[in-house]
This record gives sequence, structure tokens and C-alpha cells, in this order.
Amino acid sequence: MTTVGILGGTGPQGRGLARRFAAAGHSVVLGSRDAGRAAQTAAAYAEVGDVTGVGNAEAAAAELVIVAVPYEGHAELLQSLAAELANKIVVSCVNPLGFDKQGPFPLPVAAGSAAQEAQELLPDSTVVAAFHHVTAVYLDDPEVERIEGDVLVLGEDREAVQVVCDLAAAIPGARGIYAGRLRLAGQVEALTANLIAINRRYKAHAGLQITDLP
Amino acid sequence: MTTVGILGGTGPQGRGLARRFAAAGHSVVLGSRDAGRAAQTAAAYAEVGDVTGVGNAEAAAAELVIVAVPYEGHAELLQSLAAELANKIVVSCVNPLGFDKQGPFPLPVAAGSAAQEAQELLPDSTVVAAFHHVTAVYLDDPEVERIEGDVLVLGEDREAVQVVCDLAAAIPGARGIYAGRLRLAGQVEALTANLIAINRRYKAHAGLQITDLP
Repeated sequence: MTTVGILGGTGPQGRGLARRFAAAGHSVVLGSRDAGRAAQTAAAYAEVGDVTGVGNAEAAAAELVIVAVPYEGHAELLQSLAAELANKIVVSCVNPLGFDKQGPFPLPVAAGSAAQEAQELLPDSTVVAAFHHVTAVYLDDPEVERIEGDVLVLGEDREAVQVVCDLAAAIPGARGIYAGRLRLAGQVEALTANLIAINRRYKAHAGLQITDLP
Repeated sequence: MTTVGILGGTGPQGRGLARRFAAAGHSVVLGSRDAGRAAQTAAAYAEVGDVTGVGNAEAAAAELVIVAVPYEGHAELLQSLAAELANKIVVSCVNPLGFDKQGPFPLPVAAGSAAQEAQELLPDSTVVAAFHHVTAVYLDDPEVERIEGDVLVLGEDREAVQVVCDLAAAIPGARGIYAGRLRLAGQVEALTANLIAINRRYKAHAGLQITDLP
């Protein structure tokens, strides 16, 4: 079992992942700008498993760290934690999205994607992109036993990708699937806008599955 | 039943769609730069249904027209057929992809996507994006009875989107699903690169399904 740190762990995606990882037996360290708030959030998961709440810098000391912060402020936070995050797997599930009257749309990212931006800011870390499409609503709902949705996992390092695929499998019903190199992360992040459009049209919490896998 | 024209209809995607649409009772008009080659290709589908082969300009006269040409040359072809394509639904399934030693990658498109580029070039047509991810290998295999994969359909015009969703349902096992406005087409096109990466890793013909729909 792994100690998983989650930066921005008090947000919906962070909480949802924390619930599932803790239920699977991992130790989860929720990070937040406000350590007190993180501790409070963590206390709500006491019955699920081992979840603690601390400041982001402390959460960044975990074995594997998930970045679940909004895209805004993302670069600044990673830059400030580069030393803590060195020599470990950093998982980006950041979706750079904007919203206007016509709904959601992908924000342009100079690096190509939030994940590539993270890799540029963290040259000594192994950045993997994953967990963009699994809906926080279901992740954090104790009544939902299985989440039939695939987690697309992108990265350059085959071992790191496998670690994250295994972590995804901690979510009952979900599979972690290698979906290409980090340079293909932009469209995976942006596709979240399409899922939101689907949710609005069909009143759903849509996710993704890949067909025809062995 | 609709008369469906397919520009670039002798390519793998065009042939595969032709087989399924013809089998569902639609009349299919395969277009190609080389009308003789289109007629030859069409003849191979004589037992499936009503498929004829003509030049691209003649295929563009059909009720609904699918653009299944490679991205290279795409703009030039559409520009030359703008008059024929006016006042009808034009479905783009064009994936602007490049390939290098590291595999497939999305090409940058100034308009945002091939579909948006088509809409700019065809201001009097209603452009809808669809059929990017359904694998040609299975579409064109008579032994494959059902293709469990969703067709993401993007567009501005709700009626046109519905027409294309219905057309997608002509593929047994497939569903047509509204997946946002045309400005969200770029990542849907680009995601084809991820599916190719998945195919290479898992020796599959991967497609996509959306979960949690009613």
C-alpha cells in the first residue's frame, strides 16, 4: 500500500479520490492551503480508512502525490513545491477549463496541457496524467459501490504509468488504461468540457470507457 | 432513408461507413477524386445495399455529405465544393494527425479543429463533427455484427445534430451522443491519437463509450 498525498485535497475531486484510495487500504494525506480545513475534511473520512489532513507542503512529502487543484494557481503551487516533489511520481488530474454563456471550453495552455506544464515545472519528478474523467460526485458517494469508467493514464515512464494504473484499479469498477505519452494529455484534459456538455444535455454524470481491450 | 454522400469514400473510414449505412437501408454515394475507382469500390458493396461510386463533386450533391478525406487537401476540396454543399448537413470525421518516431500526435489547426475549419470554408452549410472514433477495421468487416462504441456528435444546430445521431444509430451497437458545440471538436479529433496509442499498447481496435447515460 502507498501513502498518497493529494494537493488540493479538500476539493471535490480530491475528496472523492481520497475516499476510494482510503477504502482500498492506502494511506491518504490530504493537503490544502489551510491545514486546519484539511484536517477537518480528513476527519469526515475516519470511518473509511487512513486519511489525514495537512498543509500542501506536508502532503507533497507523500510517496506519490496527486495534483487536484484548479488550473488557476496550479503553476505557482507546483513551483513552490518542486523540492518536495522531486524523485517521485506526480499525478496531474488538472483540467484547464473556462466557462462562458455557451458552456465549458478548454483553456489554451502554452505547454500543451496542464500535465506537460507540470513536467516543465518539476523536471526532477515523473509526471503522469490521470483521473480527469471519473466524476467526483460518484467517487465521493458512499452509496455508489462501483464506478464503471476507465481512467486514461498518460506518461513517458512505463513503470510510473503502471503504478498509476494500479492505483486507478483501487476504484471498484474502474480500470487504469495507458493512453499515450504526455504530449497527448491536452485533449484528454480538454475532453472534460465535452463530458460536461454531455452531462448538461442528458442530466448524467458521464464518464468514459474504452472498448475492445483484452 | 437518406442519400448519404461520402467524400473520400474509397478510404477505409469511408468504405466502413458506406457498408453500415447501406446495410441500414440508406443510399450511399461514394465520392473520390477518381470516379472510376469509386465505381469499382462501390461494386464491392453491391450485395450489402445501394452503393454507387462517382466523383467527389457528384457525391457532394447528396442530401447529407460526410467528409472522410485525409486532413491534407481537406480545405482545398471543401472550398471547391462549397456551392454543392450549401444548405445541407456536412459531417466532418476528419482527424488532423501527424506521426513521428514517438507515434501519433494532433496537428495544430488554426480554426481549432478540422470541423471548425470546414464550417469557416462552408458558411452556407451546417457542419457537424462525428464518426471520429469508430474503427474502420470493424466497420468494414462483415463478420462484425455489432460495434459497441459511441459516436460523439458535435454541432451548433440541434436538428442537424439529431439527424447525425440517428445516422450513427444505423451502426448496430453504436449510439450517437451529443457531445457539445463545434468549438469542442478539437479534442475529439485529437483523441484519435490516444486511441491509436491504446491500440498499439494493447493490440486492440479501441473505441469509446460514454457511461451513465439514461
